[in-house]
Amino acid sequence: MRFELDTDTTLAPLEGGRYAATLTDRWDVGAAPNGGYVMALLLRALQAELGERDVTTATAHFLRPATPGHVELEVEALRTGRTLATGMVSLRAGGAEAARMIASLGVHTAAQEPRYDATEPPDLPSPEDCLSARGPTPGGTLSEIVERLEVRLAPWTVGWARGAPTGRPEIGGWFRLADGREPDLLALAVAIDAFAPTVFELGAVGWVPTVELTLHARHRPAPGWLRVWVRSRYVAGGYVEEDADVWDSQGRLVAMGRQLALIPRDRTG
Amino acid sequence: MRFELDTDTTLAPLEGGRYAATLTDRWDVGAAPNGGYVMALLLRALQAELGERDVTTATAHFLRPATPGHVELEVEALRTGRTLATGMVSLRAGGAEAARMIASLGVHTAAQEPRYDATEPPDLPSPEDCLSARGPTPGGTLSEIVERLEVRLAPWTVGWARGAPTGRPEIGGWFRLADGREPDLLALAVAIDAFAPTVFELGAVGWVPTVELTLHARHRPAPGWLRVWVRSRYVAGGYVEEDADVWDSQGRLVAMGRQLALIPRDRTG
Repeated sequence: MRFELDTDTTLAPLEGGRYAATLTDRWDVGAAPNGGYVMALLLRALQAELGERDVTTATAHFLRPATPGHVELEVEALRTGRTLATGMVSLRAGGAEAARMIASLGVHTAAQEPRYDATEPPDLPSPEDCLSARGPTPGGTLSEIVERLEVRLAPWTVGWARGAPTGRPEIGGWFRLADGREPDLLALAVAIDAFAPTVFELGAVGWVPTVELTLHARHRPAPGWLRVWVRSRYVAGGYVEEDADVWDSQGRLVAMGRQLALIPRDRTG
Repeated sequence: MRFELDTDTTLAPLEGGRYAATLTDRWDVGAAPNGGYVMALLLRALQAELGERDVTTATAHFLRPATPGHVELEVEALRTGRTLATGMVSLRAGGAEAARMIASLGVHTAAQEPRYDATEPPDLPSPEDCLSARGPTPGGTLSEIVERLEVRLAPWTVGWARGAPTGRPEIGGWFRLADGREPDLLALAVAIDAFAPTVFELGAVGWVPTVELTLHARHRPAPGWLRVWVRSRYVAGGYVEEDADVWDSQGRLVAMGRQLALIPRDRTG
């Protein structure tokens, strides 16, 4: 079965809502696959089971890092209605559950004027004048995912990479898939989780594991670069929320992401 | 088993992670129980099963209205780690699944200065100088939930009730439980879903069913009134997101909520 986001990731239906897949290490951040890539794979299995509807909202809880290699997915259909079909997907890797997701699929109508829009796409320099995200992660390892994505960062948001965190937990820039494929709804799951953690800009650099990741996919994106802005407003008690807004090349808001993540080291902050 | 939020709602453990409960109609909005009340009940069962840890993050998908009366809950423990315990809860009413939730419980450390805080509690008149939320819902029925909660609305946010929507999809004010109990973590699930839909202020008045509701509980709230501000930034394609921030009487951000809901009638907006 085709997984358009990454054709090297195989996904084969078994019986009873189960699927066998091979996670590649091509989407690793450090030693574990990117959460957005995992969510996209779970959503692909859900679409296969419930019908090829449009991703509308999805929430995944990440229980353990999913090691690349053979994994098993299990889909449970919960309700298929006229407007939405909802199901649950579990991912098991190495005998243990790595992620569990509930998601609803609907049908995104053709583009119309929004009834209300207070979102503001960031005013970015051209992709050529932004910073490339290629480079080692804070742990010193090269993340494979940088080969899958083209991320161009707003120059004023990556102070941590220069050793001078900005003090503002925000990061954003341009995003597209490196293989030249145009963005689709599954790519939006990757877009909301593809940037460096916002808390790096507070000097909290290290492993920032996602506890839960929620995607609201609002429209099918138009072809071209996506603009992504990720912002945190409250960092305390060992946790940070990250809110990601994603606009397509037409300037239309196509997705919102929110995640709760654990912050590095100083967990009492 | 005690369900502190509403002692009239019984919750009794059966074997194998199952619980029997009786939903009252005391928390109805129109003809269906409030989503936050349902989430709080699911969280209570999860706490019973996984241990009395603190609610940290929860996402519920609402599949059908849960009719008051006998319901059955089933809890599946997913992972119990040092920092977080995660589980899934399903609610069945009248033979059909009404809601499914994944949630993580942790331990909220005692209050410390946040590492970063860009949240802004609204500057509200005293509760006495705000508007009471008691009154009929748009359909003309009196919602039972107004007897459970004391909600005092910022006067400049309830234009729809005067027939003059403000054009800004925002609503907020003071919140506490009507029985005089101080707010706890379960009450935060109610607080993020207790206000009238923001789209009422765009003139879209009617049934606004929640598709998914996510709660991030960041601290145990201090005693006293909570302040709640709910805002939408994007209304299009038949959907609206609602972001709710909740601060306790110390001015501390204690919860964030986000939901995706269907907007009334004009589903192409």
